[in-house]
Amino acid sequence: MHPLVQHISFLQVAYCSMPAVTTKRKVLVTGGAGYIGSHAVVELVEGGYECVVVDNLSNSSYESLARVQVSTQKYIPFYQVDLVDRQALEQVFRDHREIDCVIHFAGLKAVGESAHIPLKYYQNNVNGTLVLLELMEKFHVWKLVFSSSATVYGDYTRYPGMLQVPEECPLQPTNPYGHTKCTIEDILRDVYASVPSTAPWSFAILRYFNPIGAHPSGLIGEDPIGIPNNLLPFMAQVAVGRRKQLSVFGNDYDTRDGTPIRDYIHVVDLAKGHVAALQYLQKNGQVCREWNLGTGRGSTVLEMYVAFKKACGIDIPMEIVGRRPGDVPLLVAKADKAKCDLEWHTELDIRQACEDLWRWVTKNPFGYSQRGVVSTVCNPGIYDTRLVTLGHGSKFQVVFGNIGASIVDIRVDGQSVVLDGGASAGNYAGATIGRYANRIMGGSFTLDKNYVLSTNDGPNTNHSSISSYHTKRFLGPLVKTPSRGIFVAEYVLLDEQPTEFESDVLVNVIYSVDVESKTLDIQYSAILVRGGATAINLTNHTYFNLNKVNSESLQGTEIRVATNSFLKGNIISKADIATFHEGEPTILGKNMPSFDHCFVLSESALLDSTKSELYPILRASHPESHVNLEVLTTEPSFQLYTGDSLNGLFPPRSGFAVEPGRYVDAVNNDRWKEAVTLAPGNIYRSRIVYRFS
Amino acid sequence: MHPLVQHISFLQVAYCSMPAVTTKRKVLVTGGAGYIGSHAVVELVEGGYECVVVDNLSNSSYESLARVQVSTQKYIPFYQVDLVDRQALEQVFRDHREIDCVIHFAGLKAVGESAHIPLKYYQNNVNGTLVLLELMEKFHVWKLVFSSSATVYGDYTRYPGMLQVPEECPLQPTNPYGHTKCTIEDILRDVYASVPSTAPWSFAILRYFNPIGAHPSGLIGEDPIGIPNNLLPFMAQVAVGRRKQLSVFGNDYDTRDGTPIRDYIHVVDLAKGHVAALQYLQKNGQVCREWNLGTGRGSTVLEMYVAFKKACGIDIPMEIVGRRPGDVPLLVAKADKAKCDLEWHTELDIRQACEDLWRWVTKNPFGYSQRGVVSTVCNPGIYDTRLVTLGHGSKFQVVFGNIGASIVDIRVDGQSVVLDGGASAGNYAGATIGRYANRIMGGSFTLDKNYVLSTNDGPNTNHSSISSYHTKRFLGPLVKTPSRGIFVAEYVLLDEQPTEFESDVLVNVIYSVDVESKTLDIQYSAILVRGGATAINLTNHTYFNLNKVNSESLQGTEIRVATNSFLKGNIISKADIATFHEGEPTILGKNMPSFDHCFVLSESALLDSTKSELYPILRASHPESHVNLEVLTTEPSFQLYTGDSLNGLFPPRSGFAVEPGRYVDAVNNDRWKEAVTLAPGNIYRSRIVYRFS
Repeated sequence: MHPLVQHISFLQVAYCSMPAVTTKRKVLVTGGAGYIGSHAVVELVEGGYECVVVDNLSNSSYESLARVQVSTQKYIPFYQVDLVDRQALEQVFRDHREIDCVIHFAGLKAVGESAHIPLKYYQNNVNGTLVLLELMEKFHVWKLVFSSSATVYGDYTRYPGMLQVPEECPLQPTNPYGHTKCTIEDILRDVYASVPSTAPWSFAILRYFNPIGAHPSGLIGEDPIGIPNNLLPFMAQVAVGRRKQLSVFGNDYDTRDGTPIRDYIHVVDLAKGHVAALQYLQKNGQVCREWNLGTGRGSTVLEMYVAFKKACGIDIPMEIVGRRPGDVPLLVAKADKAKCDLEWHTELDIRQACEDLWRWVTKNPFGYSQRGVVSTVCNPGIYDTRLVTLGHGSKFQVVFGNIGASIVDIRVDGQSVVLDGGASAGNYAGATIGRYANRIMGGSFTLDKNYVLSTNDGPNTNHSSISSYHTKRFLGPLVKTPSRGIFVAEYVLLDEQPTEFESDVLVNVIYSVDVESKTLDIQYSAILVRGGATAINLTNHTYFNLNKVNSESLQGTEIRVATNSFLKGNIISKADIATFHEGEPTILGKNMPSFDHCFVLSESALLDSTKSELYPILRASHPESHVNLEVLTTEPSFQLYTGDSLNGLFPPRSGFAVEPGRYVDAVNNDRWKEAVTLAPGNIYRSRIVYRFS
Repeated sequence: MHPLVQHISFLQVAYCSMPAVTTKRKVLVTGGAGYIGSHAVVELVEGGYECVVVDNLSNSSYESLARVQVSTQKYIPFYQVDLVDRQALEQVFRDHREIDCVIHFAGLKAVGESAHIPLKYYQNNVNGTLVLLELMEKFHVWKLVFSSSATVYGDYTRYPGMLQVPEECPLQPTNPYGHTKCTIEDILRDVYASVPSTAPWSFAILRYFNPIGAHPSGLIGEDPIGIPNNLLPFMAQVAVGRRKQLSVFGNDYDTRDGTPIRDYIHVVDLAKGHVAALQYLQKNGQVCREWNLGTGRGSTVLEMYVAFKKACGIDIPMEIVGRRPGDVPLLVAKADKAKCDLEWHTELDIRQACEDLWRWVTKNPFGYSQRGVVSTVCNPGIYDTRLVTLGHGSKFQVVFGNIGASIVDIRVDGQSVVLDGGASAGNYAGATIGRYANRIMGGSFTLDKNYVLSTNDGPNTNHSSISSYHTKRFLGPLVKTPSRGIFVAEYVLLDEQPTEFESDVLVNVIYSVDVESKTLDIQYSAILVRGGATAINLTNHTYFNLNKVNSESLQGTEIRVATNSFLKGNIISKADIATFHEGEPTILGKNMPSFDHCFVLSESALLDSTKSELYPILRASHPESHVNLEVLTTEPSFQLYTGDSLNGLFPPRSGFAVEPGRYVDAVNNDRWKEAVTLAPGNIYRSRIVYRFS
């Protein structure tokens, strides 16, 4: 399935089906990159909320949010901030004055670890919450949904005959983690009780039982660091071969099969519970209530073992070992209160949870980590300029950045062969060019109506002028490694109002890196999501310098092209350049020859833009570096530019660009116009391949 | 009684009775300036501990510690630091690496207030403790005595028949203040349980019942801000007329007289409980235990009312009003555990507490605040350069600083008339001069043995050279306002080893400011506390410029002196200077006349140094400013210095000094030596008066 189509089905977001923008509210999600947090972000975005995420990434990966952004096509501002860093957290509230509610997931959560480093747990969980509440007060944000835990009850079997624990059960946590949750609950109740009128606090305290499973998309799930503490992730790691066997801690409890009973809740159900709680707070004003989020049904460890084995179809080695200190026999929610108040109930069962978990672990056997993929943030705070390297440490590696979905660097056998624009908005180098690459003569065109664009090239509009994609933040990438040495990074841009092109377009850029063949394959696709037919023409604007290790100049580069025909207005002329059929290649000198030509392959190729047949259009090499480049494309033309003026950002002729695309100014030519017109229901596609040797 | 003698009796510190320095350990006391903290500091110092105090002074006064320092003659390093200010608190640990134990009083403590501003209570109490514990861990300080509260029990009458609450009673606090104490207890227990071997934590959790009373000295006591929450301080304020009448909240409880029963414990007993707990930790290694600190006996509100009325001998208006929400009928300690473990029990009863409280409030009707007295800190962190102004806002005000017990400023009708040395160690201006003021010829003298001093005046030692008091930190001041317009500030210096004078001397400087007569009276006294007889001669080194508002120079100052006889070695000569009997005063010109003479009054006056008869020795005035100065003293001689060389700190002749004292170099003259010899059991005294008009 085409990834774009896959995403459309994921969210049912497509042309004409966009929900009306009504009472969208902004939600700050602390710990939103974590297991439950990331699932809640998906549900919030699907529910029409805007999310801002704060996470210190101490036990989570930004990758989860990159995936959610690509899936939902929504930008989610992210701050790598620890809640106890008051100044940094305050900046988040300053940047997002319209935050209406906080969903507070952030916190350390390992019971066992909490017994070893309790101070860190109190500092992180309790003090983090205090700082958060103080800032909420300061910025008049009064609604908070808090991640508590069934751990606060302790061993409720101290009350004989109690099978499901109700919210009213006295709290008696038995470990520091539980104490921190209990203390935070006390704080919330005390704060709520403190101010009857002036500060309209509203708190939902959600006590989770045992969250399991993963998003059905297989894109996000639990990615525990080190040895998993919980049954399901452990079993999953045994199933994929990362652990040897499962240990079941005790089968001599007073339960139906002797193993402890827990209330396992699908993480998607749990995430939906947060949206329900948020809506409850928005509807009911000042409240402070506790809700169990559980199914009300218990499963034994052995029942889960059987269910998971069935879901994955693999036999999982298991042995019964002694009881683990602190484990209670029974922990099942009385779930009525949430059902009644929040009009929420669980919809997914453990079979679905096991299947979804298995999908997640088989697609992501090492969680969010992938060998050969490295992400770094160049601008701390916001991942606008996150750099992702595919093929890291191999003979062919490519670095991408979010602004312009840019190619920041390509290294062939360790040699950088492109100009690095710094992943910034200042120049075209490496960037995706759209909505309409190359020139629109006279800065205007007519489709269903007449469009007048800003001009930036005398009377013409080049590369869409102020609407150019090289300054836009693409979402993602969603990175996959379908097989060894193959890396795929997918960026998404919802190119929407305000834009001089008026209609909204969803653009998908998929980069595939094949280390073995040293190939970078770029696939563009786009659909219209709002408004009338629009003009479109996408390309990539990398400047190549195949001898960059030795020289700042492209001097000495030998090129041949598929054709020496180029467009001069509507007239086809011949350029003085070597084609594939000639004996000697054209050698680019210090100042000459100079090209800024739109070479054309054939007019017939142009008309069938759904075809994915690749043509080689240019071959280049340099005798000093011995690097060869072949450019292939599905496109009927390509602009060749020898970089004679690079706006002072680079010396003149320090690189050449090959920009495949539809015919220049096609939108103003009746014969070619259809190829650059994206109409409702259609999909625009194009493909460019850089192959090195 | 002479204040010095009073202090000696206070601490039984006198010659030969000093305890041997054995296992003194350094204790960090957080909140050590507060009610209970300051009493604990007294007991710790008396118990041979060194104290370092941290307090944010949000609900306390540094005055309490100044008084404790004067009383105990011990310097107590003080930091105005909030515990949540990690950096500042870390500096305290850096400055005092040998801290062995922390006694942790710091915290907000008003139950009612905690219900209004719970976040502040959690932030201050819980987070403050977390930061403290983290730093203790970092600096390997493992012992902590924690101020908890009986509030953690909540209403233990929920258990029928329980008359005294034991430590094992389940905790169920009913207000945010109680929650913070309970949370901190949880933290301590969790931290203790976390590390069996590597971090040898040791915690004493002390649950206070109702502390009352004050130190029997009347110097320190409770000084609540605003309307007192507690019974005794409220009654006391009614007794001194600050409040109209006492409200008793409910007399319909099921108790012997219908009013609630509490376990009132004398604050001195409570303070001693902390020393006992500290010793327990030092003796028993790794422990974490809770102890009630109470008497085990309950008194009703009405019983306390009667007891306090009896102690103060004043009828206190009272009315019974309705119950106060949250009050429980009974809160009495089961006190056995502390008695058994800590070998501590209460020794003082409510009669003594009421008497001590009454002494405190009658001596300090407005607590540590005194009208006309203002303290400021010029160097935040340590009060080394605290400035205290007496007669603030009146026509005669004097500013004092701790270094050198210096006169920093004197203002007569708003005009400053002295040179300000900046309360720093760099110069003599305004400072107390000792151990031996003026010159010791040849830099040596002989008493029971020969002493050789550093020289700083050619072959001579002037103002004790490197041992001079102008660089020493005096403790205090203890400030009193015995009557309207009279202010007394008392500084103490334990001038001890290492010193070139060898023996240790306790020096007392009492400044009395009389606003009406514009008089500053200085009384010096000193006793020997260790070693053989020593040489002593004390004076003050203020530089006067009576026309300072108009000129940097003393030019035009008219002076007369009591005598024109001055000492030149052993020879008495006559100086060319006007005496009281002559027609015209001597007028000090821009450069002339120049004096640096030791004028002598009479040899007979010299020999009886215990007499306190004052002689006028100098009168000065300036025709431009109309300020007149008369200097009187008990001393037989005075150095007059026209400031012809002021070491570059001030322009030459910008002020003149009058330094009354024993004869110059008396220690090297057999006839005069006795007057400058301080032998065991003797008291050195002298007095100087500056009177302005």
